[in-house]
Amino acid sequence: MPATTSVQVLIEQLARDARDAARKLAAVSTQQKNSALTAMADRLLASTDEIHAANEQDLADASQAGLSQAMIDRLRLTPARIDQMAAGLREVAALPDPVGRVLSKNTRPNGLVVRKITTPIGVIAIVYESRPNVTVDAAGLCFKSGNAVILRGGKEAVASNRVLGRIIGSVLPEQGLPEAAIQVVPTTDRAAVGALLKQDRFIDLVVPRGGETLIRRVVEESTIPVIKHYKGVCHVYLDAAADPAQAEAIAINAKTQRPGVCNAMETLLVQRDLAKSLLPKLGQAFRDKGVELRGDASVCELVPTAKPASDSDWENEYLDLILNVKVVAGVDEAIEHIARYGSGHTDAIVSADQAAIDRFVQGVDSACVHVNASTRFSDGFQYGLGAEIGISTDKIHARGPMGLEELTTYRWLVVGDGHVL
Amino acid sequence: MPATTSVQVLIEQLARDARDAARKLAAVSTQQKNSALTAMADRLLASTDEIHAANEQDLADASQAGLSQAMIDRLRLTPARIDQMAAGLREVAALPDPVGRVLSKNTRPNGLVVRKITTPIGVIAIVYESRPNVTVDAAGLCFKSGNAVILRGGKEAVASNRVLGRIIGSVLPEQGLPEAAIQVVPTTDRAAVGALLKQDRFIDLVVPRGGETLIRRVVEESTIPVIKHYKGVCHVYLDAAADPAQAEAIAINAKTQRPGVCNAMETLLVQRDLAKSLLPKLGQAFRDKGVELRGDASVCELVPTAKPASDSDWENEYLDLILNVKVVAGVDEAIEHIARYGSGHTDAIVSADQAAIDRFVQGVDSACVHVNASTRFSDGFQYGLGAEIGISTDKIHARGPMGLEELTTYRWLVVGDGHVL
Repeated sequence: MPATTSVQVLIEQLARDARDAARKLAAVSTQQKNSALTAMADRLLASTDEIHAANEQDLADASQAGLSQAMIDRLRLTPARIDQMAAGLREVAALPDPVGRVLSKNTRPNGLVVRKITTPIGVIAIVYESRPNVTVDAAGLCFKSGNAVILRGGKEAVASNRVLGRIIGSVLPEQGLPEAAIQVVPTTDRAAVGALLKQDRFIDLVVPRGGETLIRRVVEESTIPVIKHYKGVCHVYLDAAADPAQAEAIAINAKTQRPGVCNAMETLLVQRDLAKSLLPKLGQAFRDKGVELRGDASVCELVPTAKPASDSDWENEYLDLILNVKVVAGVDEAIEHIARYGSGHTDAIVSADQAAIDRFVQGVDSACVHVNASTRFSDGFQYGLGAEIGISTDKIHARGPMGLEELTTYRWLVVGDGHVL
Repeated sequence: MPATTSVQVLIEQLARDARDAARKLAAVSTQQKNSALTAMADRLLASTDEIHAANEQDLADASQAGLSQAMIDRLRLTPARIDQMAAGLREVAALPDPVGRVLSKNTRPNGLVVRKITTPIGVIAIVYESRPNVTVDAAGLCFKSGNAVILRGGKEAVASNRVLGRIIGSVLPEQGLPEAAIQVVPTTDRAAVGALLKQDRFIDLVVPRGGETLIRRVVEESTIPVIKHYKGVCHVYLDAAADPAQAEAIAINAKTQRPGVCNAMETLLVQRDLAKSLLPKLGQAFRDKGVELRGDASVCELVPTAKPASDSDWENEYLDLILNVKVVAGVDEAIEHIARYGSGHTDAIVSADQAAIDRFVQGVDSACVHVNASTRFSDGFQYGLGAEIGISTDKIHARGPMGLEELTTYRWLVVGDGHVL
């Protein structure tokens, strides 16, 4: 298969170049990195014609391929979105450099000085789906944290991604920086992803962002460590001791404020006694917001317009105005339900009872556990951490918002004076 | 294949039980964990006859299978080694609990309180080779950090491992703790490892400890995140500005103090000018210690007893009294050599020139970089971190000594008062 072979050769060269670039990038000063990020933002704004031309091509192909209007909207690079990408690069330039921070220092009784210091991870591959802004956002964060990045977006956005990569990448050689620090995989050949996932000699981390099928493929094929940004089947549990007004406000907000994102609620759990008094009214409020309810038998009794939920509904990430609702006996049943159906992203309790809160916090093992706060706050900016490349649902290395800090690792620097053991 | 199927069923049940145990273990107090660890130490010492009987069986099988004397020595559980395992458990009991530590806390302008708190990882599988003491050491560390552990040792040690697992595990139900918190895979069927590596629904992390073939297999087959404890091809670079006495002491120590461990030096790099004055004498000192030298052309000229090194020698982890020696022009060539042949474990420079040191520290991307100190200090105890399950050569999550802290992850706890976005 000569085609596959040439893709493999191409990908290996790309990975090798990224490794070389990463070694050089590790020595670049904060000021140099920030100056390059600012130049990239300027270059983007100066290149809107070129970006629009490439994007129009992707949009035309998408129309012809019969993609849904929602998909086409996600592909579109409006002037506002180009402004946002440029502004994002400037924000990343303004964030503190995560590299070179001394995490701990101790002097041993024998005089050895042991320091734990943050360093770039090295080479990061991002495998993502349709939105082309990820190309610029992820490149900016990886670059600021001193990592070389290989970007592989969806085939629908290939023209846009290539042009965006070329525009921001053009700044690098001009500033004496390694060009291969930011690379967009130039082919839509599916074999390129398979080849990329085997480059463990050169690539240190793969971050897949997208649907379940994409993430599953990456996990099964990769010999490189993967940090998964998996689906958000987020729950809100309304406890018997919840303030009813708070309960209603948080439930409505978590579902409807922006239903298409991973930290929106997908399943509402309501304690039995509260359900009797609250659910008829809350059901009406959801209906007014256009939300379709899918409930268990008790819910369907209390809210006649609710449809019966099927067993598979409980693990659905709808990203839409559809909500599962279940009546539970109390906090323990809520914990069990979340353990069985949740995705470990964000789960919330609304309660005024500290004992119930403590039990929930202890029993729910998710990246983010919220108490009397909407799941929608589960976000790097809301947590005060700055820009993120996503929300990790993995337990290794990064959990929850994955920003600049999580794009670094550390090493040990040990200084002696002729010490031998 | 009914045999394989039954192994798969067995392994899935084991993984499922471990997941349940992990959920319970997360709620266990520090005091309960420490009391169980102490009881495990007592139980080990009270069970020496049983341990010896099982170990004798492994030793007899090993003899019959024609294993090398070195392998048989590693298998043997002497009374001193049983004492060491028990003492190890007591030391782990005395270490601070790594779970529940608040890593950061910040109050947002809207009043949300955002805390980052350490938690257990969940279920950890350790896949290792011959030494049966790993069974107890790894179980103790995983248990203290609140993780359920599944232990899969080498087939040579299966009887010993099973008995050790049973003895320490017997403490758990007596203390009201989940029995499946510590499980030894009860079969030597090779398919069990394959089945284990696919249990990503229940297992959060796999730590392989052993040779390259084992680690490669785990990385290729696992759908669970892996932290590799890879080989240690450790280098010492003797700079032009090294103090000759320090240079000699560190070189001899790094190679000969305990050659069979991963932080022993495998390759010595010597700056050209220093080589002329130092190598003839240093070569003699190594010969006196029984070390075989394999060198490049310059080394063979300066040390007539040195053999020529083949290209593959430079990436060998000998774990023996064999040493590669190479003459380099200076620190840059040393950095290049380490980047090409090193394993990212521990690399050292000996120099009195701060500029050369800075360049080396900047250019060598290994888990541990030592300045004027032997590579042999690369160890959790020497760094003041306490017991470790190994030295990670990975870049994700844990790098260098992997102890209790690296056996935890974190989650975000966000407390509001009815906050909506």
